[in-house]
Amino acid sequence: MKEHIEILLVDDNPSDVELTLHALRRYKVANRVQIARDGSEALEYFFGSEPGAGQPKNVPPKVILLDLKLPKVDGLEVLRKLKTSELTQAIPVVVLTTSREEKDIVESYHLGVNSYIVKPVDFEQFAEAVRQLGLYWLLLNEPPKPGSSP
Amino acid sequence: MKEHIEILLVDDNPSDVELTLHALRRYKVANRVQIARDGSEALEYFFGSEPGAGQPKNVPPKVILLDLKLPKVDGLEVLRKLKTSELTQAIPVVVLTTSREEKDIVESYHLGVNSYIVKPVDFEQFAEAVRQLGLYWLLLNEPPKPGSSP
Repeated sequence: MKEHIEILLVDDNPSDVELTLHALRRYKVANRVQIARDGSEALEYFFGSEPGAGQPKNVPPKVILLDLKLPKVDGLEVLRKLKTSELTQAIPVVVLTTSREEKDIVESYHLGVNSYIVKPVDFEQFAEAVRQLGLYWLLLNEPPKPGSSP
Repeated sequence: MKEHIEILLVDDNPSDVELTLHALRRYKVANRVQIARDGSEALEYFFGSEPGAGQPKNVPPKVILLDLKLPKVDGLEVLRKLKTSELTQAIPVVVLTTSREEKDIVESYHLGVNSYIVKPVDFEQFAEAVRQLGLYWLLLNEPPKPGSSP
């Protein structure tokens, strides 16, 4: 049994990953952040490598931070899969991306994203945004219990 | 044309409404908060009094803060209507309630709520929670453009 993961961070940009981990350090969750470097790794985290296995491999995190421009399976496709599976539909997903293109924003909300945040270009502002969203999703938001279904 | 509304606050408890407005004052949006005192008023804000009118009456707010225990139409039913209409599906909805009952949490996520927050009982903690969620949804989150559809 793996240690309980609080955040699944799906991002292929090493410097953004480093910066995000650094900003999250104040919540003492750095060792409970799982990194997925592409869309395929993100889906494997929940569904395993066999499609339709029917059971989540891991305890659901409190939030998934999802970049959109990802290798292998792109972020919108990951979002679609997460929000159409009963196993993962309730897990909060925050898109965290450099894209402020209207079509990405519209499509993300259409697919059921919980929140959409544009990565600030400035280093300090990026760190501050991660701290704010960490505070919100780790401490303020009430996540669904693992495995609960209506 | 009404002034542009940033937050629709759906709550029938006068002291919670007062406290929420007070906590939001730091974002200088107090005059851009619309109050709906029951579920029926909340739905009228978007759909007018005629069902199926097909056009939102008002510019969508950046976020809807939705209590669950409401007169006339209860909060879960309001959430269901908002998340199944193309006109309102993309607007972020945060449930802000005293209920931490598992069935309310599960059902809210199942219906597509963006976030679920349990109202802290303590006065100061409640104000702080409202400030945090105001910061998050008014300043950090990128809302969908009004009237956009995929």
